[in-house]
Amino acid sequence: MANPDMANPNTVANDVAATERITLDHGAGGGASQWLVGEIVAATLGEVHTGLMEDSADVAAPAERIAVTTDSFVVKPLFFTGGDIGKLAVAGTVNDLAVSGARPLYLTLAMIIEAGFPITDLVRVLDSVRETALAAGVTVVAGDTKVVGAGEADRLYLNTTGIGVFDRPGLRLGSRLLRPGDAVLVTGHLGDHSVHLLSLREGLGFEQRVTSDCAPLNRVVAALLDACGPGIRCLRDVTRGGLGTVLNELAGASGVDVELDGPALPVRHETRMAASMLGLDVLYLANEGVLCAVVDPDVADEAVRVLRGWPEAATTVAVGEVVTGDGRVRIRDARGRTTPVDVLRGAQLPRLC
Amino acid sequence: MANPDMANPNTVANDVAATERITLDHGAGGGASQWLVGEIVAATLGEVHTGLMEDSADVAAPAERIAVTTDSFVVKPLFFTGGDIGKLAVAGTVNDLAVSGARPLYLTLAMIIEAGFPITDLVRVLDSVRETALAAGVTVVAGDTKVVGAGEADRLYLNTTGIGVFDRPGLRLGSRLLRPGDAVLVTGHLGDHSVHLLSLREGLGFEQRVTSDCAPLNRVVAALLDACGPGIRCLRDVTRGGLGTVLNELAGASGVDVELDGPALPVRHETRMAASMLGLDVLYLANEGVLCAVVDPDVADEAVRVLRGWPEAATTVAVGEVVTGDGRVRIRDARGRTTPVDVLRGAQLPRLC
Repeated sequence: MANPDMANPNTVANDVAATERITLDHGAGGGASQWLVGEIVAATLGEVHTGLMEDSADVAAPAERIAVTTDSFVVKPLFFTGGDIGKLAVAGTVNDLAVSGARPLYLTLAMIIEAGFPITDLVRVLDSVRETALAAGVTVVAGDTKVVGAGEADRLYLNTTGIGVFDRPGLRLGSRLLRPGDAVLVTGHLGDHSVHLLSLREGLGFEQRVTSDCAPLNRVVAALLDACGPGIRCLRDVTRGGLGTVLNELAGASGVDVELDGPALPVRHETRMAASMLGLDVLYLANEGVLCAVVDPDVADEAVRVLRGWPEAATTVAVGEVVTGDGRVRIRDARGRTTPVDVLRGAQLPRLC
Repeated sequence: MANPDMANPNTVANDVAATERITLDHGAGGGASQWLVGEIVAATLGEVHTGLMEDSADVAAPAERIAVTTDSFVVKPLFFTGGDIGKLAVAGTVNDLAVSGARPLYLTLAMIIEAGFPITDLVRVLDSVRETALAAGVTVVAGDTKVVGAGEADRLYLNTTGIGVFDRPGLRLGSRLLRPGDAVLVTGHLGDHSVHLLSLREGLGFEQRVTSDCAPLNRVVAALLDACGPGIRCLRDVTRGGLGTVLNELAGASGVDVELDGPALPVRHETRMAASMLGLDVLYLANEGVLCAVVDPDVADEAVRVLRGWPEAATTVAVGEVVTGDGRVRIRDARGRTTPVDVLRGAQLPRLC
C-alpha cells in the first residue's frame, strides 16, 4: 500500500477532486483519454514510466535471450494491508521473471476500469505501481486503458506483462532439474496473503494479525543466485495453488518425490485457525511474496543464511527433501506418519490475485 | 472469424460438450486450471504457442532494440462478421508493433473469463487467435487465465502484449517527422469496424453490408517499407479515435497542419448513412485493419501502388497533404471550403476493441 511518507512529490492526487470518476469517455481514444493517460497515469507513474503515449515502446534488449511473462490481476478487495492491486501486479510479474533466472527490466501496464471508479483510487493504485517498480528497479514501458460500463467489471482489473534478460551465462534453473537429496526451502509464512484477503472479505477478524506478504523478490533472488547459483535447481513463487501445487508440478516434471516435514512448515497460528475454520488446507493457500527454492544439499545452509539476510525472507527454513520416486508429494507429521499431498482439483479461494 | 475450412486438425472443440462452462475452479491454479490451460488453451493454439505452462518464456531477442506494446480487448459482441475478439487481439497488437517499424515476433495472451462462459466459445476465440497468429507469423509465448464470478466481467476480456524487433537499420518513423508537402494515405474504407459493431448491437441493418475490416497488417507494412522505406515518415493504424485523432496527434507532434481532401476520403455509402443517423462523424470512427501512412511526395505514387497490391489495402488512396502550420487538422469540401477537425473530447462508441 502507498506509504504516505514515500509519496511521489509529483503526485497528482491532490489535484483530483474526490468526486471525479471514470467515464466511458476516458477510454474512447479522444481528448478525455489523452488527459487520463497524460495527466493521471503518466504524471503519477513519474520516473518509472516511459513511452505510455506511443503505440509501442522502443527499448534496448541487452541480452541474446529474454524472459517474457504475463499476468492479469482481479484481486478483491483492491486495497488491503501490505499491498493493493498495483503493488500485487508489479510484484507478481517481477517475481515470475525473477524465479526463471532473468533480471526484470520492463513492464507493460494495461487497465480495464469500470465506469464510475473514483479517479483518486486510480491514483492510489498508480502510486503503488510506481513505488513497487522503483523498489524492483523496473520501468513501465507501455500501457493501455479500457473503460467498460458499470456492471461490466468489478471496479478495476490490471494486466502486467514483464520482460527480463537472461544475463547469467551458464545458469540453469528448471522444474526438471530436481534430484534426490535436494533441499526444499520456503522464505516466509505460508498462506498469509490468502488468509488476509479472505478475512477482509468475510470479516473473520484475522486481518489485523495476518497481513499480505505481497513483495517483489527479484533482489532477494539475485542475491541467492550470486551466492549459490550453480547449486540452485529451481525457484518458484508460491502463488495460486500454494506450495502443494508448486511441489506437485516440480516433482512431476523431474520424476522424483518430495517429502515435506510437516512440523517444519512455517505457518502462523492465525493462519492455521482460519484454514481450520474454513476447511481449507494451508498447503494450497496463496502467498504473493514467498519463494520456494529447491537447492543442492551442499548449498542449503548457505542459501538459508543468504535469504535470511533479507527482510522479505527473514524466516526462511528448510521444509523438506527430494527423494527418489515417480512425481508424488507427501507430508510427514510429528509422529512420522505420511499423507499424500495431491494435486488440488478445484478452487479454494477466488480472486486472490 | 474461424474459417471452418482452415480449422485446426488438432482442435479440441469437438471434444468439449456445448454445455460445459467455465467455473471459478478453472482459474484457481489447481488441477482444473491445468486442464484448461493444457487441454483447451495450449491444445487449441497448437503450433503458435510455446511455453504457456511455465512462469515465464525464454525466447531469443535477435536485435539490440525491441518494440513492446500492450492492449486489452473488451469488444462487444465477442463474435462479429470479419473477426472476433481473438482475431482483434492478435491483429491489434501486431499492428501496433508494425506501425512502429518493428517486426512482430512474440505475443502474450491473458484472459479474464466470467464464470459461466461456454468452453466451446473459448475454443472458438482461441482458434481465431491461432489462425491470426499464423497469418501474422507470430508466436504466443506466455499466457494467463483468470476467472471472475458471474456479473464481474462481460463474458471475456483479453490482453495481448506484443514484442517485436527493430531489424531495419537506418529506418526512422515517428510522429514528429512530418514535413510540409508530405502525402497522407489511407489503406481502406474509414469506419467499417465501428459501423459493423454498432449495427450489430443496435440492430441498424447495416451489419451485412459493412463488415469489420479487422486484419493483421504487418506483412503489408513490411512490403511498404521494403519498397519505400526512407520515404515513409510515419505509420499509424486507425483505431480508437479514428483518422481525426491520429492526424491531430501527428500534426501536433510535428508542428504542421494537415489538410484533408473531403471528397477523396474512402467512406462507404452505408457508413455515411449510419453515421448520419447517429450523429457521429466518420472521421472519428474506428477501424481495426486500416493504416494511415504519411509519406514523402516523391514516393507517394509508388507507396499507393505497393499497398494496392495487398487485398487488405486494395483501396488505398491519398486523402490529404501536410502543410505549414501549428498542429491543426482541417478538411476541405468539394466547394473548397475548409472546416477544422478538432481533437475529439468524449466517447463516440464504447467497447469497439
